[in-house]
Amino acid sequence: MNIQVLSLFPPMFEGVFQHSIMKKAQEKGAVRLGVVDIREFANNKRQVDDYPFGGGAGMVLKPEPVFNAVESLQTSENKPRVILMCPQGERFTQQKAEELAHEQELVFICGHYEGYDERIREHLVTDEISIGDFVLTGGELAAMTVIDSVVRLLPGVLGNSDSSVRDSFSTGLLEHPHYTRPAVFRGHSVPDVLVSGNHAKIDDWREEQGLKRTLERRPDLLEKLELTDKQKSILARLQEEK
Amino acid sequence: MNIQVLSLFPPMFEGVFQHSIMKKAQEKGAVRLGVVDIREFANNKRQVDDYPFGGGAGMVLKPEPVFNAVESLQTSENKPRVILMCPQGERFTQQKAEELAHEQELVFICGHYEGYDERIREHLVTDEISIGDFVLTGGELAAMTVIDSVVRLLPGVLGNSDSSVRDSFSTGLLEHPHYTRPAVFRGHSVPDVLVSGNHAKIDDWREEQGLKRTLERRPDLLEKLELTDKQKSILARLQEEK
Repeated sequence: MNIQVLSLFPPMFEGVFQHSIMKKAQEKGAVRLGVVDIREFANNKRQVDDYPFGGGAGMVLKPEPVFNAVESLQTSENKPRVILMCPQGERFTQQKAEELAHEQELVFICGHYEGYDERIREHLVTDEISIGDFVLTGGELAAMTVIDSVVRLLPGVLGNSDSSVRDSFSTGLLEHPHYTRPAVFRGHSVPDVLVSGNHAKIDDWREEQGLKRTLERRPDLLEKLELTDKQKSILARLQEEK
Repeated sequence: MNIQVLSLFPPMFEGVFQHSIMKKAQEKGAVRLGVVDIREFANNKRQVDDYPFGGGAGMVLKPEPVFNAVESLQTSENKPRVILMCPQGERFTQQKAEELAHEQELVFICGHYEGYDERIREHLVTDEISIGDFVLTGGELAAMTVIDSVVRLLPGVLGNSDSSVRDSFSTGLLEHPHYTRPAVFRGHSVPDVLVSGNHAKIDDWREEQGLKRTLERRPDLLEKLELTDKQKSILARLQEEK
């Protein structure tokens, strides 16, 4: 996969793109990550923003440099998806990450400050994505977040030990609790079942704990799932115990 | 405000903490940002994770180094909020950003890989926060996202030109479209009203566009708002036009 990010602050990406899984993914050849400085595509004086028509505070990202930057990445055979990060976009989910992981090429546009010229939204982008109902200083962290969640799904990126198969949101349930050594830490013990050696019981406990946690914290997730008969009977019992 | 982040990958934070608004906020003295390497608090051999009790793939973050690292930041007068970034946590919103912006001190714990020892969740943290229903390689990007949205709200961080008062989610509505020069770009013109010079009409247009966009993209936001009579009548007309 080839990912290009358009930003006014390319150095923001250095730490995230050069460490941990993102570094490994590039070394393994699973992804190429590039950052393009929007200022290099401004017509004159590196001016990328301007006052809003109609007045008001704040500066607006001009259309030309963004169109020019995106078009520099396109060829006749190659029309990548162009994703605008903005709070008004479609809410990002694990399903969207899985969808994007099938693309060959993605371009992300990160605005900063007040907003984008609307013609960028109307005539250049193919997707608008929001990571949530909160305001950031720019689209950079939102783009990094989406890229991280997509890249870790690419074939060969995660080893067996980091498998993405049992992730929260992949099964549709929240994960059961995890414990590691020491068995007793400051008086707090690991649940007996986990040190019992009885793997059938351990599996049952984990399934129940995942359901319990989802019921307590995110009952909305249960409504979207096709539960097994076993899961339904566990849930019925948990609801009775409450 | 003093913010400390516990991570296994401190260099991931370099780009984000040293540019744009985060850099300015530190220069202005509005915030101190620090990153603590969890490995430095491991008892031996810098081992921070271990196999899960009960078996299974993936490694689990051990309790000792995380407890030790958090406690190194606490004093008797000073018990900061300790925030665990995890997909099972409370969903982060602008309201939560505003709440956190009133704290003097925040500590963020970023896990990586499979999970945390449950005793960290039960006995050390005060808040669990999720930025959305998707899986990341670690809590680092989620923590940076929360920190960015909190820091920009601190007094003196944003200049007048970047004011946070009219943000999406601060008014409860999505923002109206923005336009800047040129008035005609590749055949696409700015709406006439914005170049009319009639500020009452411009305000009306912007209010209607914000309502229209919210109605189209996020009708759920309208349900949470106390609308003015004027807004109600605009919405009634918009719904009729649909």
